[in-house]
Amino acid sequence: MYKGEGILSPPTVLRLSEYLLILEQFLKENKETISSRELAVAYGNNANQVRQDIFHLKKSGRVGQGYSTRELADEIRFSLGLNKIKKICIVGAGNLGTALATHVPFSQYGMKLTKIFDVDKNIIGVNINDLKVEPYSNLVPAIKNHEMEIAAICVPAPVAQDVCDDLVKGGIKGILNYSRVRLKAPDYVSIQYQQVICSFMQLTYKVNNT
Amino acid sequence: MYKGEGILSPPTVLRLSEYLLILEQFLKENKETISSRELAVAYGNNANQVRQDIFHLKKSGRVGQGYSTRELADEIRFSLGLNKIKKICIVGAGNLGTALATHVPFSQYGMKLTKIFDVDKNIIGVNINDLKVEPYSNLVPAIKNHEMEIAAICVPAPVAQDVCDDLVKGGIKGILNYSRVRLKAPDYVSIQYQQVICSFMQLTYKVNNT
Repeated sequence: MYKGEGILSPPTVLRLSEYLLILEQFLKENKETISSRELAVAYGNNANQVRQDIFHLKKSGRVGQGYSTRELADEIRFSLGLNKIKKICIVGAGNLGTALATHVPFSQYGMKLTKIFDVDKNIIGVNINDLKVEPYSNLVPAIKNHEMEIAAICVPAPVAQDVCDDLVKGGIKGILNYSRVRLKAPDYVSIQYQQVICSFMQLTYKVNNT
Repeated sequence: MYKGEGILSPPTVLRLSEYLLILEQFLKENKETISSRELAVAYGNNANQVRQDIFHLKKSGRVGQGYSTRELADEIRFSLGLNKIKKICIVGAGNLGTALATHVPFSQYGMKLTKIFDVDKNIIGVNINDLKVEPYSNLVPAIKNHEMEIAAICVPAPVAQDVCDDLVKGGIKGILNYSRVRLKAPDYVSIQYQQVICSFMQLTYKVNNT
């Protein structure tokens, strides 16, 4: 599928996903071709890194003449597998879960937010972005019923591992973990950590060293 | 300051910040020493990577006998500069800004959330975690007055660049950008991107390739 090693490294996947957002910004500005140098300037890295990353895509030619912005965006989408629809649920409908449900443009990237769960009786039944919050007790049956493959954990730290265990019991394939807890799950479940405080630490380090 | 190259690479900084959270979880479980292998198992990488990362810290010895969990945590804090207090503000007090203000344990990592700003008259004056939301017009004067060095942008994409321009005008040192817009700012301003949709893309890729 790819010219490179077949499986892309996590940093490469992250950069490609971020290039995709930049390419879409360029498309909105009607910029139909782009050079690796322009992409590097917009991203804040260097043209060699951009070319190396693009080399992993199915088609990677046309260095020097620039790339078609749209084709490059499509190739990234294809390589990351965004062309296959993934059903997503959010566990925890507090501020964070609500922010994800209302602001993340899932449908633009091959994802479909299908369910939101909470344990709080005052929140169950509330509409968030056209989805009614469902009782947590529906979670395991819904996953077993193939209603979603990916779950975002937006619950407080003390219950994050219990939620993870239930997700695994249901047969979830991927977990985006917003809690600060390191989750224990079988190897066949992919976990992506999104520890907000770590981003602030990274920024602190940059500020201290710029 | 460091045994290594002096300036740590962004992926190294990210891993160190994530190790710190794991070490703190171990401390809570009264695990006072830890081997690079145990840390690697908890993190999901390998012991060589852990040892390489720890090698960048001021003291890095004691491989084989294990590390003192507390000392290693302290060394990471020191290397990332978390010992110097950084004042932080949040721009945009919607669901995301509120989630950050209420759930991120800033004070545990040398950060102090000092202000939250919004343009919405219905939100200005509301208390979030003991801070009153202030009018956006206070932003530039407050930064000029050295009331904060770091800002988290939690506003809708169409106004993100305007907010960034105001932050730069005030003299901000670091920006955590939650909008999907690639920001234009002078080189002396550190920007950390936190594009939520990219985490979902990374997870999609992992799920497709596991």
